[in-house]
Amino acid sequence: MKTTQLQKASSWEEVCKRPSLPINELNEKVNQIIEEVKLNKDRSLISYAKLFDKADLKSIAVTKEEIELAILKVPTQLMNAIDLARKNITSFHESQRYEEKIIETAPGVFCWRKSVGIESVGLYIPGGTAPLFSTVLMLGIPAILAECKNIILCTPPNKNGEINPVILYTANLLGIKNIYKVGGAQAIAAMAYGTETIKPVSKIFGPGNQYVTKAKEIVLKDGLAIDMPAGPSEVLVIADSSCVPSFVAADLLSQAEHGYDSQVVLLTNDSTIVDKVNNEIKLQLESAPRRDVILKSLMNSKSYVCESIEDCFLISNKYAPEHLIIASKTPDNYLSLIVNAGSVFVGNLSCESAGDYASGTNHTLPTNGYAKNYSGVSLDSFVRKITFQKLNQTGIESIGPAIEVMAEAEQLFAHKNAVSIRLKSFENV
Amino acid sequence: MKTTQLQKASSWEEVCKRPSLPINELNEKVNQIIEEVKLNKDRSLISYAKLFDKADLKSIAVTKEEIELAILKVPTQLMNAIDLARKNITSFHESQRYEEKIIETAPGVFCWRKSVGIESVGLYIPGGTAPLFSTVLMLGIPAILAECKNIILCTPPNKNGEINPVILYTANLLGIKNIYKVGGAQAIAAMAYGTETIKPVSKIFGPGNQYVTKAKEIVLKDGLAIDMPAGPSEVLVIADSSCVPSFVAADLLSQAEHGYDSQVVLLTNDSTIVDKVNNEIKLQLESAPRRDVILKSLMNSKSYVCESIEDCFLISNKYAPEHLIIASKTPDNYLSLIVNAGSVFVGNLSCESAGDYASGTNHTLPTNGYAKNYSGVSLDSFVRKITFQKLNQTGIESIGPAIEVMAEAEQLFAHKNAVSIRLKSFENV
Repeated sequence: MKTTQLQKASSWEEVCKRPSLPINELNEKVNQIIEEVKLNKDRSLISYAKLFDKADLKSIAVTKEEIELAILKVPTQLMNAIDLARKNITSFHESQRYEEKIIETAPGVFCWRKSVGIESVGLYIPGGTAPLFSTVLMLGIPAILAECKNIILCTPPNKNGEINPVILYTANLLGIKNIYKVGGAQAIAAMAYGTETIKPVSKIFGPGNQYVTKAKEIVLKDGLAIDMPAGPSEVLVIADSSCVPSFVAADLLSQAEHGYDSQVVLLTNDSTIVDKVNNEIKLQLESAPRRDVILKSLMNSKSYVCESIEDCFLISNKYAPEHLIIASKTPDNYLSLIVNAGSVFVGNLSCESAGDYASGTNHTLPTNGYAKNYSGVSLDSFVRKITFQKLNQTGIESIGPAIEVMAEAEQLFAHKNAVSIRLKSFENV
Repeated sequence: MKTTQLQKASSWEEVCKRPSLPINELNEKVNQIIEEVKLNKDRSLISYAKLFDKADLKSIAVTKEEIELAILKVPTQLMNAIDLARKNITSFHESQRYEEKIIETAPGVFCWRKSVGIESVGLYIPGGTAPLFSTVLMLGIPAILAECKNIILCTPPNKNGEINPVILYTANLLGIKNIYKVGGAQAIAAMAYGTETIKPVSKIFGPGNQYVTKAKEIVLKDGLAIDMPAGPSEVLVIADSSCVPSFVAADLLSQAEHGYDSQVVLLTNDSTIVDKVNNEIKLQLESAPRRDVILKSLMNSKSYVCESIEDCFLISNKYAPEHLIIASKTPDNYLSLIVNAGSVFVGNLSCESAGDYASGTNHTLPTNGYAKNYSGVSLDSFVRKITFQKLNQTGIESIGPAIEVMAEAEQLFAHKNAVSIRLKSFENV
């Protein structure tokens, strides 16, 4: 890890720069896939499975038999671990449900909000070597809690036309019934516009490669909603002299193993920490199975020695990290300094893996500085809050005259009249 | 209003179609404006004010003197009305603030969320003949309540280089200090990328013409967030036999006066209501000042007689109206039937104008069917909810082994190690 001594605030901009993402030239390719899915629906999905996943599919829907078979394949120890994670994620997301009060804003004027689940949502789970069943938990649990009526899960099949059994097990455990063997941009298109088999949805969630990301961006224009814009995963660790260097090293390495483009940043106010952490990184790397990936993403990674711990937090707020770890024995002192972050791991024992899997928080978080303007996925992401207002006679009498004055000032005379006609009706009684 | 007798559910799709929006060919033009603002900043804003607003500006920032002068120009009656609206909007939006509890999801594992205001937000207020000071209230109040540090307001000047005094008065009343004489796509570009005078923001709010809408869509790709996608304003009224036809007519007309493209839909289960409402429309139109606009948008408007009141709500949910008025003496019976709507006006005395100005609810709402997947603007729109987790020794011991199993199953070995190294550290003690 390259280390820099930071002194002047003028150098902070440099710290916060992400490596520029490759300019996305996929527009045409992805648009073509989307148009093809719109036109040929299921048939196109089966062709793309052949082309991209090398799979011969008879049907894209996962059958009950496939799920039953999958359940038999999952080791009991993993089942128990998933169940523990499910319990914790459920209890934290359940706590995000509020019964909002009815507010009498003026005499006789009652206003309130009601959370209603989005009727149809689509969850995308990427394929690849590692089956991301944890993402099934992170998206599926709030979708179920929000009482979304139609929950669809798409994930690419392997070349034998199968879905990873742990993904099927987890989806089934949550009660997700509509699981389809579709990956990539074609999955996003299928969920956005519908096919004979897949019902169209209103909002699409989930990570994916650049094709998936581009497809999500394109369908956004057609009235779909998406969870949030995507970028490479990242962690920023703020370590003071009470940190445990071996823990810090382990956290940096766990972020680095995500992929070549992962971002890892270490900020400290104690220059001795950097050497200690670097030594620990070397030690731990010796036995790390994903060494190649880690070494490459460590090339992008940086550590900085700042003048004070307050400076570390100022820089972190400028950077707006997806994950922020506070490696300290006294982390609570610093919490009020945090303005921009996706999820915060408080203290030496709170590793990022805890939030990735089982602490209860969601791991679908804003990357690439989006923590400045987006929240991570939560129960909120799966509902709309509908506002209601109810006025009785006292209500329209109490605010009606003000509305008449304001509507007239905005030259909206029919708006004024809608009040006047009601106020007049009381005179006749 | 064209009336149709609705019987079969198969005809409902037709009801829910919006008139197709003109295909937006502005991409190139708006991109050009954005690039120009990025390059020449303030200088380009002054040129565009000359070109589009016919205004000679020396500076784009509104001065203290201009605000003081504006305050003198606002009639006391209007000041009082604005103050009443401000009070109600404040108390409803203030009620949307929660103190969330810390949840112990597993022994020793503590998770919570904290709402933090978005640091920099931009509010766009359109110009034109009618000064939309009500939108200043609807966007400014939650921005202030959310404690956004940097709040910017852009609105186009008239040809004398002035901003409408009621807009200045209202912004100043709320404590918004940074007000700029910039309109159109150039305002969105200035707020997104910054100029010498205007600090860049992270999220942009507010209505506008097709240039503004297109510019918001474009800057979205560069990491900005926006309030929601835009479409023409609309109301759907569900009236049963206990409605007041003259009130229903007044509500339909008040929506129709918004613009040529406004949508107005009436659903009822009582065929006699349609005639009564149509007669009232005729009567009220005679004295309506914005008759031309109203007549044109009534051409797009439709009424339907449905077989039951339940059918009315099923259709309304399919349509997902921005505003839903329940014109009935017994509206509470129907509330549980509502799934998709932006804001609901409950009962004969709750007119849309109430929510447009002063009941307390927000009038920035999802149009064009977006109520299926978006909420209206609220305090939530101006904050991010950052998640936190804190584990003590009991915590990492209680969930650590499950994390190890799951991380290994996802082939993320460094994730596993971040837990293992902490668990092992306890053995040495």
